[in-house]
Amino acid sequence: MSNASSDKNLILSLNAGSSSLKISLYEPSAPSGSVEFLVKPVKLLLKSTISSISSPPAQFSFESVSLSSQCHKDEKIDSITDHASAFSHFLHCLKQEASIDGRRITRICHRVVHGGDYTDPVEISQEAYDHIENLSDLAPLHNSAALSVIKACISTLPDAKSIAYFDTTFHTTLPIHISSYAIDQNIAHKKGLKKYGFHGLSYAFILNAVSQYLQKPKESLNLILLHLGSGASACAVQNGKSLDTSMGLTPLSGLPGATRSGTIDPSLIFHYTARAGRMSHDPNVATHVGVTRAEDLLNRKSGWKALTGTTDFGVIASKAELGNRDPALSAQNPYRLAFDLFVDRILDFVGSYHLKLKGDVDAIVFAGGIGERSVELRAIVSDRIACLGYRALCPEKNERASSSDNVVQDISAERRQEANERPKRILICRTDEQLEMARQCAQAHF
Amino acid sequence: MSNASSDKNLILSLNAGSSSLKISLYEPSAPSGSVEFLVKPVKLLLKSTISSISSPPAQFSFESVSLSSQCHKDEKIDSITDHASAFSHFLHCLKQEASIDGRRITRICHRVVHGGDYTDPVEISQEAYDHIENLSDLAPLHNSAALSVIKACISTLPDAKSIAYFDTTFHTTLPIHISSYAIDQNIAHKKGLKKYGFHGLSYAFILNAVSQYLQKPKESLNLILLHLGSGASACAVQNGKSLDTSMGLTPLSGLPGATRSGTIDPSLIFHYTARAGRMSHDPNVATHVGVTRAEDLLNRKSGWKALTGTTDFGVIASKAELGNRDPALSAQNPYRLAFDLFVDRILDFVGSYHLKLKGDVDAIVFAGGIGERSVELRAIVSDRIACLGYRALCPEKNERASSSDNVVQDISAERRQEANERPKRILICRTDEQLEMARQCAQAHF
Repeated sequence: MSNASSDKNLILSLNAGSSSLKISLYEPSAPSGSVEFLVKPVKLLLKSTISSISSPPAQFSFESVSLSSQCHKDEKIDSITDHASAFSHFLHCLKQEASIDGRRITRICHRVVHGGDYTDPVEISQEAYDHIENLSDLAPLHNSAALSVIKACISTLPDAKSIAYFDTTFHTTLPIHISSYAIDQNIAHKKGLKKYGFHGLSYAFILNAVSQYLQKPKESLNLILLHLGSGASACAVQNGKSLDTSMGLTPLSGLPGATRSGTIDPSLIFHYTARAGRMSHDPNVATHVGVTRAEDLLNRKSGWKALTGTTDFGVIASKAELGNRDPALSAQNPYRLAFDLFVDRILDFVGSYHLKLKGDVDAIVFAGGIGERSVELRAIVSDRIACLGYRALCPEKNERASSSDNVVQDISAERRQEANERPKRILICRTDEQLEMARQCAQAHF
Repeated sequence: MSNASSDKNLILSLNAGSSSLKISLYEPSAPSGSVEFLVKPVKLLLKSTISSISSPPAQFSFESVSLSSQCHKDEKIDSITDHASAFSHFLHCLKQEASIDGRRITRICHRVVHGGDYTDPVEISQEAYDHIENLSDLAPLHNSAALSVIKACISTLPDAKSIAYFDTTFHTTLPIHISSYAIDQNIAHKKGLKKYGFHGLSYAFILNAVSQYLQKPKESLNLILLHLGSGASACAVQNGKSLDTSMGLTPLSGLPGATRSGTIDPSLIFHYTARAGRMSHDPNVATHVGVTRAEDLLNRKSGWKALTGTTDFGVIASKAELGNRDPALSAQNPYRLAFDLFVDRILDFVGSYHLKLKGDVDAIVFAGGIGERSVELRAIVSDRIACLGYRALCPEKNERASSSDNVVQDISAERRQEANERPKRILICRTDEQLEMARQCAQAHF
């Protein structure tokens, strides 16, 4: 329980999606430098989620986690019409329900999807803001919500520092022959056209958590990480650094997702629509930035949604008739097609990354909404990779995992290990991008 | 030597590229049904290549292989201005130099890149011609040269049968969850938007040749095939059937090539140029079909050419300073960048296909201009896949292979084999798409 109810120094983590805003409030858990601080530098006080922002009324939830006053709210709020009013409503509720004055927040961490070549988080100045705004040309669908939240924070809490944490930072270690596309390099350099990779805050969290769990320093870990959520990606980590990842210039390429096509033939979109290069007129797409019809279609109108009508992978798994081994089933059951297609694309990356890591893999890690919850997906992927020397999945551990609160769980069966061989475990990690930002923020003395 | 100089029944194989035409003339080697016919149904009489057709003067070469009269020509011909005049000039030369009347040709095999859902070769009727012309919407850069050659053949040799052989046919066995993209399936079905795969004539040739070499029936072979030429692709063969392949709706996706980007983020092109969706006005692009600027850029102005200025992979390998292990070299030496990037993308597919084949692989096969000639590329790829249990490369065999005429060569070191384990050999195959067509043609009694 937090008793120092009037102390300043609170840290807020904001994660803005195109139509949602997730908020977590933390306080430093102990004096900086203490052992407690090193292990767990921040404590979660409360969390809030605002969804359906662009299709009102918005849904607002607010829940205390470790406060002296318990509170829980979950309601529709008419006055929320954009990310700025969502944030205002949160501050109002913070005061009313939890008796916390917004002015106690001294640092605000913003998850920004595209950070271009930023190799570190950056405190928002006018210059940094302008730079991030320019980067939004590369990711108009992804950065604009964060930018409007940053603006709202600066105007409502002018004394707090706003710090941008980028999903791309984790991947600035990609070797150039992996991050480059086979296109004109003068244009590539001028326009910043290369593989950046995303989900980096999640991968940083997972790497830390797995390092602690396995009691092995990050620098000596080789991992295959699968962040499988409504956006999905894979990452090969070699000696604690990102070696390759499935997303590219933008989050569109690589694995398919809830509404995203993932990798397709680059010429497909021109056969899909004659208007691929025109600007999108969908009112739900941020209109102050240019988004082509192609990018709108492939990011927002493809994926599971286009294949099955639902974005809920749990529904897809339950309707996929996974017990039926008839290979023709994919042609008849769209849920099965979506499921099998996802497994196929996951194997593309796991096979590739296993080879690039020379088979020296400490663990493959499932994370993200689907990775953490889908017992079926983990079972099938694990079965398919057993031929590469991965441990067998323990069905009981796999089944029980979804109901556990442990940050990292090993769901593979024990086995004898050769001395010079890496264990190739199968792990689940409950990833937490907001916590990762708050932790980095507390440790960095911003 | 062919003595039956006035027999009819000759088979012509035509392989039209955007600016080239390769021609091979065959005769059935023995009576159909004989043992000799079964093993080698056709005999090559002569071959001809016409290049630089779209940047005159065209280069014309003509060489007898097994004819009573020896002839060899290699000259620039001003009168060749398109594929039709290139074919006319060939027929003229056939009569003049080799004393063979074109009317002895009874069957003409045409390599057609995109065959849509055709599961077999097809004799050209007006209906088939129209159908192939419609398919050209999906592959305007690839089918149009073949179509103009088909037209020329029908008008100059009206009594010969023209038969279209498709690069897509080999891949009609792809499972639906592998061939489908995560996009709206109504539109996908209506417009034929799925992974077709290409280089199928080459893969069919390799599969036959490797089956003979290993003395193992095709139906029990699992192979990873690499057709690495100015166009490059990979294919996973399971029990003699294509299970997955790297090219997609068109030959653009997958591996990069001489002028092709290969897989990129699907939104990249809209950041490369604001005019991605406009029609190309490049006079070298077939203008009677629609080709977007995006497709023109990514198919014809990317790849090695864009990275290094040359399309010759031999030059790239020789200037890549492969002895220098400094990982930063890729940033300084564009040849090294191109080389390392190609190896990286090859490993993506080899790793994926090894996993999809459950590690049960009889051989990985290098083919195509680069696959058959680049000692360096084979050495580096083989070294990288040794961790998956592939045989070690024998440096001497690898070195000697390029100067051998054998169709299939094993360049891996011998090793003891476990009884239940597939050998994972490293092979080279001199692939021959024209011979594959002629062989299928002779055997099919078209």
